[in-house]
Amino acid sequence: MKTSIATVSISGELPEKLEAIARAGFDGVEIFENDFLAFDGSPRDVGRMVRDFGLEITLFQPFRDFEGMPEPYRKRTFDRAERKFDIMQELGTDLVLVCSNVSPVALGGIDRAAEDFRELGERAAKRGLRVGYEALAWGRHINDHRDAWEIVRRADHSSIGLILDSFHSLARKIDIGSIRSIPKDKIFIVQLADAPLIDMDLLYWSRHFRNMPGEGDLPVADFVAAIAETGYDGYFSLEIFNDQFRGGSAKAIAADGHRSLIYLGDQVRRKPNAAALSVTTMPDRAGVEGIAFIEFSVSETDARELVAMLHSLGFRRTAIHRTKKVSVYQQGEIRILINLETVGFAGAAYAVHGASAYAMALHVDDAAAALTRAVSLGAEHFAQPVRPGELEIPAIRGVGGGLIYLIDRKGELGRLWEIDFQPAEDDHVPRSAHLQTVDHVAQTVAYEEMLTWLLFYTSIFEARKSPMVDIIDPAGVVRSQVIDNDQGTLRITLNGAENRRTLAGHFLAEKFGSGIQHIALRTADIFATAEALRANGFNALPISPNYYGDVEARFGLDPELTERLKAENILYDRDEFGEYFQLYSGTFAEGFFFEIVERRDYRGYGAANAIFRIAALKKQIRPEGMPAR
Amino acid sequence: MKTSIATVSISGELPEKLEAIARAGFDGVEIFENDFLAFDGSPRDVGRMVRDFGLEITLFQPFRDFEGMPEPYRKRTFDRAERKFDIMQELGTDLVLVCSNVSPVALGGIDRAAEDFRELGERAAKRGLRVGYEALAWGRHINDHRDAWEIVRRADHSSIGLILDSFHSLARKIDIGSIRSIPKDKIFIVQLADAPLIDMDLLYWSRHFRNMPGEGDLPVADFVAAIAETGYDGYFSLEIFNDQFRGGSAKAIAADGHRSLIYLGDQVRRKPNAAALSVTTMPDRAGVEGIAFIEFSVSETDARELVAMLHSLGFRRTAIHRTKKVSVYQQGEIRILINLETVGFAGAAYAVHGASAYAMALHVDDAAAALTRAVSLGAEHFAQPVRPGELEIPAIRGVGGGLIYLIDRKGELGRLWEIDFQPAEDDHVPRSAHLQTVDHVAQTVAYEEMLTWLLFYTSIFEARKSPMVDIIDPAGVVRSQVIDNDQGTLRITLNGAENRRTLAGHFLAEKFGSGIQHIALRTADIFATAEALRANGFNALPISPNYYGDVEARFGLDPELTERLKAENILYDRDEFGEYFQLYSGTFAEGFFFEIVERRDYRGYGAANAIFRIAALKKQIRPEGMPAR
Repeated sequence: MKTSIATVSISGELPEKLEAIARAGFDGVEIFENDFLAFDGSPRDVGRMVRDFGLEITLFQPFRDFEGMPEPYRKRTFDRAERKFDIMQELGTDLVLVCSNVSPVALGGIDRAAEDFRELGERAAKRGLRVGYEALAWGRHINDHRDAWEIVRRADHSSIGLILDSFHSLARKIDIGSIRSIPKDKIFIVQLADAPLIDMDLLYWSRHFRNMPGEGDLPVADFVAAIAETGYDGYFSLEIFNDQFRGGSAKAIAADGHRSLIYLGDQVRRKPNAAALSVTTMPDRAGVEGIAFIEFSVSETDARELVAMLHSLGFRRTAIHRTKKVSVYQQGEIRILINLETVGFAGAAYAVHGASAYAMALHVDDAAAALTRAVSLGAEHFAQPVRPGELEIPAIRGVGGGLIYLIDRKGELGRLWEIDFQPAEDDHVPRSAHLQTVDHVAQTVAYEEMLTWLLFYTSIFEARKSPMVDIIDPAGVVRSQVIDNDQGTLRITLNGAENRRTLAGHFLAEKFGSGIQHIALRTADIFATAEALRANGFNALPISPNYYGDVEARFGLDPELTERLKAENILYDRDEFGEYFQLYSGTFAEGFFFEIVERRDYRGYGAANAIFRIAALKKQIRPEGMPAR
Repeated sequence: MKTSIATVSISGELPEKLEAIARAGFDGVEIFENDFLAFDGSPRDVGRMVRDFGLEITLFQPFRDFEGMPEPYRKRTFDRAERKFDIMQELGTDLVLVCSNVSPVALGGIDRAAEDFRELGERAAKRGLRVGYEALAWGRHINDHRDAWEIVRRADHSSIGLILDSFHSLARKIDIGSIRSIPKDKIFIVQLADAPLIDMDLLYWSRHFRNMPGEGDLPVADFVAAIAETGYDGYFSLEIFNDQFRGGSAKAIAADGHRSLIYLGDQVRRKPNAAALSVTTMPDRAGVEGIAFIEFSVSETDARELVAMLHSLGFRRTAIHRTKKVSVYQQGEIRILINLETVGFAGAAYAVHGASAYAMALHVDDAAAALTRAVSLGAEHFAQPVRPGELEIPAIRGVGGGLIYLIDRKGELGRLWEIDFQPAEDDHVPRSAHLQTVDHVAQTVAYEEMLTWLLFYTSIFEARKSPMVDIIDPAGVVRSQVIDNDQGTLRITLNGAENRRTLAGHFLAEKFGSGIQHIALRTADIFATAEALRANGFNALPISPNYYGDVEARFGLDPELTERLKAENILYDRDEFGEYFQLYSGTFAEGFFFEIVERRDYRGYGAANAIFRIAALKKQIRPEGMPAR
């Protein structure tokens, strides 16, 4: 799949943009005119610089307000075109984008436009150049690719072709079946962008909300599949206008863009004629059967605090690593590893982030295949030296730097707990709290990294993303989005913090980066668990008594149930499928905490309760330096 | 005018919100239920706390999904209502807001709803409580205040009334004439919010984009005027959902809110029946005739650099202050003051911000009246001791801390330049560059302060705001909005920077706050000016040669004109009214610069050229520590 991206999609000045684009692995780049105009070098310098980065200029754009102009504008428009042709020849590119006219003086009429394009085609052909026509969703007369195609067809000139753009077609919900009948050689280039589904003015939406394919809600893969059916084998080029991307890291945004295209190719590889696209082949998305373990990197002092918390939660030590200072605490299928090593990745993680849940392991169907796929999609393979006889567990780096181990039940990896670990007794055996599995892992990330994480998880693993939800923290809004699968065996909530006064933002600031802020552990009987926890001396997070009066009235709860909830500090929620019970621990190490949940067919995450949980947690953290807002 | 604000409008926890609200001068507060639920104190504690702050609880809200419920929901809904009534009595408020039902199970029918409200009214009346009904713009059956009023009318119960909300009515463009026929005693409270005009889904718009009256584009003053005509004399209460406000400073947002209400009162004070509102009386908005001077606070070293720049711009020293180390540099009607004092406000400004244009003086029709108005609207009056015989120039603090002097032609103030200053010769007399007046002042502000500034200027001075424009800086988006008047004698551009890698953001970070980043000086002949500047040794900001080829083609310029523009580094723009020429200086003191403009009936500010100017300025600043992005 030939990949390209428009310079307008990322931040920085031209040389910096090109470097980021080249390093991300793109084959080509669209030169957005303003990026070129603001740059000091001549068109020849720019062309040379692009080629020195190993990139091809796939397109020069945009050329606006061309077709259907009355005189005297028409003449000037052609003069402008000749001037663009000069620049293109100096740049060393043969394709220019003409977007449909938005000028109030433009005249309509398919044949008039076709005639203008025929003349432009003649002029372009003399110089060996080509012109692609794109229907803007808000074009004055032409705002549908089917009409643009009719103009190109009637222009009937080998130098005139069509440019398709997923945003413009999908934003207007134009039937993509109409693409299949366009001859592949008349599609000069394909531009791609996605966007979240928010009903708003098309131009405003386009200018501010576009994102990478797979990050939004538009059926971009279906769009690409329709194009593949034509036999098209040219460039797919990202053209993303997004305020956040414009202010973000050029390197990170370019990497996301490249990943989004590779993933798109993978999604359409079995479609008719897709062979022409020569997409990167890789194993299918990895199915996740559960969270195999969560690993904390801590100091001896932190470890004492964490172990006390785990004991009160009903965990006990069941194993220790054969050679490393790593202990396994277990309950049901949940394993929590405490790593005291001061060398290697865990040691480094501690040095940078302090005590943190720096790694999680996912049980996948095939760990080697999952690793191959992740690396094909640009994820960083993580490996560190192991002692003879010990397993090298496949692992990748997460977006923020944490680790994701990939475990399966095959071969030696299936015997991980016997090979690398040996059974160990615990000095203290608490009462079991009936905790069974990890229900979900909650990751706190910088808001500008949310899309990166969504694309990372959903492209590598068999998972989908939920719509974004706003969580109201007293000090600001936290955006929350869920990654999960059909079976409910993978559930990750991503919380994006915009300012450091929110609880999530405070965590980010203290930890110097994204990380696991809490894990939710599942029980089948929240009250039995609560009773056991009390016996173990667990300190539940105190919830405001005001909450319970409201929850009773809101859901029409039996007052007796409300009393039990209140006595145990349990939060309650209900959706169309069932009921949800939540119980929280206090915090450990600047903001980490545990949640215990019971799901009775409920499918959500208790978002409506978050404000009460946050208010309660903030009270615990405040004395150590958290501002009230 | 009785003022109130909902706790949901500002950030922080309940006590902090209440403190900010009380300090801003509000009379009352709406308690948003979640703020109360998340708080640890009992309803009685909350009620006491509110009263201790000298505030009245104007409303308890929201009570959702009430009317039209079928059994068994209906019974539970009434149970919920009784529970809210309990809380209200403990809080010490008699009014609750019921917003129109959005539940999918709700049944329609005006009479069914009226019947539900009559029963609710009976129950409320037993406790001495009242219920207000509000039509949400996205209510399932009721989404128009006229229908809500019909339900209230048919409920025909003294404890049941209507709640009007400017956002819900104006967002749906409902005829506000319909308000005038509602009896004033049936309007229980009025909620106000404004919003920028962006065509999008109503709920999304409401949740994220609302702002204070006067900060958006809705005709809120007309809405209030229609309510005034009913003779209504109750509370006007702000209910603003805005992500930025939720993450902002509680104190600043509350102050803006109070200002917006006082200003609204002023706008409607001459409407029929407005006397009932007992609005704060104050002089009319101050007409601005021009910028009287710009004052820099600098060190001796900076002064040498600045004076050299002014000389090259054709300015010469014409006067010095009689007692202070302040020199006046003049050209045409433009006066630039250089203040070397190390004590007083100028000295303090230098200590905090370094060399900066820390003050500007506006020529107004009546300085004393303008000051009175500003102070009535919550602006801070600035005064510092003056020596005997010297004038005390009326002044106010700007939002970020800079000064705005208010000058008129009356009495002693009209003779300011004779009284406080004495003529002085300059050692160096440069050639005049034909600069005549200050065309505009460009202020760079933190993005989250933009709305504050807009409200500040437009409420005190006779001025209007333009729609927001996005300026593309290579490192991110800068939002730009213009404050100007009909005569063109007041023009201020506000640039809101979201990240410090943009040119505007860099300026903010270096200056520790908002400030004047550039001033544009007007000439009637840009080429004559350019020639004089060259003779004076002025260093124009070099513009990329690529720019000129494009501008020639874009506007169909005579190549000879293009050559002249290029030779002088002049930027060109055109709008439907005329032409615009821009010429820039290099930077002084970490980012300040001068612009010279010629307007030939042109009305804009050359926004399309900003990217080229920014790219060129960044090249100058970079060596001193500005990152490329």
